[in-house]
Parts: sequence; structure tokens; C-alpha cells
Amino acid sequence: MEVIYSIELMQQKSDEWVRKNKRIGFVATMGFFHEGHTHLMKEARQQNDIVITSIFVNPLQFGPHEDYDRYPRDERHDTLLAEQAGVDILFLPDVEEMYPRPMQVSMSITDRVNVLCGKSRPGHFDGVITVLTKLFNMTRPNRVYFGMKDAQQVAVVDALIRNLNFPIELIGLPTIREVDGLAKSSRNVFLSSVERDEAIWIFKSLKEARQLVVDGEKNPAIIVKEVADTITRRTSGKIDYVELLSYPHLTPVSVIEQQVIVAVAVQFEHTRLIDNLLFDASGKLIEGIK
Amino acid sequence: MEVIYSIELMQQKSDEWVRKNKRIGFVATMGFFHEGHTHLMKEARQQNDIVITSIFVNPLQFGPHEDYDRYPRDERHDTLLAEQAGVDILFLPDVEEMYPRPMQVSMSITDRVNVLCGKSRPGHFDGVITVLTKLFNMTRPNRVYFGMKDAQQVAVVDALIRNLNFPIELIGLPTIREVDGLAKSSRNVFLSSVERDEAIWIFKSLKEARQLVVDGEKNPAIIVKEVADTITRRTSGKIDYVELLSYPHLTPVSVIEQQVIVAVAVQFEHTRLIDNLLFDASGKLIEGIK
Repeated sequence: MEVIYSIELMQQKSDEWVRKNKRIGFVATMGFFHEGHTHLMKEARQQNDIVITSIFVNPLQFGPHEDYDRYPRDERHDTLLAEQAGVDILFLPDVEEMYPRPMQVSMSITDRVNVLCGKSRPGHFDGVITVLTKLFNMTRPNRVYFGMKDAQQVAVVDALIRNLNFPIELIGLPTIREVDGLAKSSRNVFLSSVERDEAIWIFKSLKEARQLVVDGEKNPAIIVKEVADTITRRTSGKIDYVELLSYPHLTPVSVIEQQVIVAVAVQFEHTRLIDNLLFDASGKLIEGIK
Repeated sequence: MEVIYSIELMQQKSDEWVRKNKRIGFVATMGFFHEGHTHLMKEARQQNDIVITSIFVNPLQFGPHEDYDRYPRDERHDTLLAEQAGVDILFLPDVEEMYPRPMQVSMSITDRVNVLCGKSRPGHFDGVITVLTKLFNMTRPNRVYFGMKDAQQVAVVDALIRNLNFPIELIGLPTIREVDGLAKSSRNVFLSSVERDEAIWIFKSLKEARQLVVDGEKNPAIIVKEVADTITRRTSGKIDYVELLSYPHLTPVSVIEQQVIVAVAVQFEHTRLIDNLLFDASGKLIEGIK
């Protein structure tokens, strides 16, 4: 595995591969890898000639009071995991090279963002689409891989690719979970042991929600209330949101009669966890998108 | 020459060429070709394996009171001229396919735009960078060609390519002029015969400006006043702006000691003309950028 720090070198390499008719799979990350990330890399490995993974903690997508400075980092461990996952290029651009001066061109997304995490993180997804546009232009992927754990991000990337006609296929892969069901996340390390035990109820409440739909419930309000009640009763976390929306448009639904997402965010003392389930009108699980 | 209307087919073709290691030159236009356009195509022809020219009158870059509806069109003549210039693909995307629904992702440029034409056309260059991002993703060029007649547009495209790391080389080619010096423009057809005679003074005034610098004048205010006086005295047009700025940053200068542009816009009865000259601190003409 080659580690590349320079944007110019990355562009030279990707240009070469494109011209040699190599198919490039790309996994954009903020590092501190867990199985959720390596699963994306392994999937990319199977489907492409070249696999590029980037690690870039993007200041543009963090709000002023968010955890940019303390976002966990472990480049050494990440390098090992990426290598084991079969990555060809680990791309570690520098923040000064990425944003050499205030940006003259800015991008923003107005749809799919005023719900879920986007609601409490104004500008977050503007930062996401900006850095992804830059990274896509640097790595020139045929396929990009994202985890469905951040389903809103996948919906936003879908809009980005379609709206600006990037010649890229978007693949959303199922959330990877601990044995007890907790969604893997770089932020899980910030949970106390009591919170860690409570946190399993996030996924449990989502499974309950799906079961209600399987059993014939079509009213989103009832399902949302059930999820919220379970999390409130079973955890010390504070609910940021519980929402049931169409997917990927992320619009409110009055009756469940299409593909929907139930998504939650729970604030614990030192960190905030998110999770979701995607299913169709009959409650049939949708595990990923392509 | 092949004429392509479908975005999907255009993307298939460009993908194929990229994979076959063909170098693609791209000329984005709004049609109604004159020598200024065909010059870009011919230059692209010499430097690339494949030459793509698009014609798309982009509603997003016209203000509500601008001339979108009456922008001159002549597809038949354009097709002939493009073929003669050695273009391989004439790409004519449809406005409904280009903007199938309100855009969810928007782009804007905050620098290099609050001067010259950008000042009186709020949002114009936002529309330009949006459509160019889309067209670049459809045609996947190695090199893009623009005329220096719209020098601000070249400066904006330069910012777009650099900021978002497009793997594209920008080439700005010298303005093509009529024998009497008037810059070629699709909008010249709207001039009355009296205005047409007067219009030569636009370029003459710019040459006078350059001569002043050659003769040692370093004060932008004096030069700007000379240009404005000449245009006012010699034409019936109303001056929209006369500006002398650094190039390509388009910032005001107090003393001429770097590459600068003198640019003017003059409103005639039925149309507005622009022109400019680019030169260094000694007055040496800069004919194009690369």
C-alpha cells in the first residue's frame, strides 16, 4: 500500500489509472477506522482495480462548537487496517493544501438537509459536498462507497452526484454493528461503560419500529413515539431527534407507503450517537443502496 | 462530426475516450458562432485527440431582466461552422435534461465577481460555474478553451478549477476582432449601423490606455478617466464600467506594478458590448493565458 500526502501526486496517479482503463473505487473517511470503514474498503477491493481510501478530518463540515479538535485520530492503526483491507492508496491530504486560502467557490445543498442531523448542524453538509467534490476530482473514482449508518450523508451524496453529473456510481453499504447491535462508530470510544450498555437500546428501538410496520402500522407518528419512549425509558441519553421520512428524499410522510427511514440521534454525556433503519412499506429491510 | 443531444450518451462517449487515453479538448459556448468561437475550436483541434463543443444557452446565468429569451440562435449555421473547425462532437443538451428539477446543490463564487460585469449581473457567475461543473463532468476534458474577451469569465473558471481541483488545464485565447478592431460578439448583430461605427472606439480607447502605460503612466485613475472620456466623446453608448484591475485576481490597484486588465462595458440602445486589454506593468500586451 502506498501512502500519498500530496494532492498533485494523487492527481497524477489517478490520471494514469484512468488512462490505463483501471476502475477506481474510493472510500472517503475521517479516519479512526473500525469495521464499518474496512467493510467499505473490502467491498471496494472486490469491485475495482484500484482502491483509494482518504483520511481527511474536514474542518469545513464541523460547526464552531463541534468536535473537530478532539475528533479521534490514529494514523498508525488506520494505516495497518487499510493495508489489511487491501487498499492500494491511502491518501492523507493536508488541510493547508486542501484549503490553501479562503475558498472563492462555495457549494451548498438546500434539499435533504433540514431534517435529521442536518437540522442541528447548519452548513455541515455544505462542507461535506465541497470536500467530496474536491476529493472526487483528485481521485477520479468510478465507484464511491459510503456506510448507510449516515444515511442522510448517502442521500446528500446521491443529490451531489446527480445534480452535478459526476460520472460516479454511489454505493451505500449496510451499517456494521457490534455483536449486541450497537452501530460501530469512531465516537463510541467516548461512551462511559454505563452508557455503552444503554446504547444498545438505540438499535433495539429501531427494530421495534420496523416490527410495528411489519405488523401493519402505517402511522409514522405512532412509530416515532414508540422509538422515543423506548430510548427515553432505557437510556440516560437525551434524544436529539427521532424521525421517520421518505428515503432518499427525506421528506415527511403522513402514511407509510414507500421506502422510509427511521433515524435517531441521541446525545450522551461526551458524545452523540446516530443510527437508522431503512425499510419498505411492508417493513422489509433495505440493507444498502446502489 | 457527430451531434449529441443526450447527456447519458455524452457521458458514455467521454468515458470511452478517457479510457482509451484520448486527450479531450472542450469548448463551452452559447452558440451563434463567430470567429471567436471557431478560433477556440481550431486551437482545441490542434492540441487534442477529441474536440467537443457544447451549445447551451444556460438560463441559470441570465438575470430576470436579461436577454435569455432573445439570445440569438442559429443551430444550422453553428453546426456547419463547428464541422468546418474540425469539431468531433457537437453537444446540444436540452435545458430540461440539464435542469430536470430545481437544483438541490448550488454553487456560488464570492471572489473575482463583484467587479466588471459581475457587479451588475448578480448571480451570473454562479450560473456559469454551475453549468461548467456539469459540462466538465459530462465531457471530461483535459483542456478547456475560453476567449479572453470575457476575461472575468476566464478568471472565474480559473478559480473554479483550482478551488475544486478539476484535473483540467484552462486555456484563455486572445480576443478575435473585426478588421477595424471591434471585438467579435454574438451580440454585435443588435447594433445599429451608426452604433457599429461608433463601437470601434471601445477598442481604440483600450489601446490608448495601454499606450499611456507604455509611456510611463502608473496611475490607474488617470488611465480609467482617459478611456471613459474617449468612449463618452466618441459613442452614443452609456458606459456601464471602465475598470483597471489586477489579473486574474481582479482586485483594485493603486499603482500599476503587475499584470493588469483594463476592461469596459458599454450599453448601446439594444445591446451591451464588452472588451478588454491585458498587459503587464510596462504595457506589454498579454494575449492569452495558459
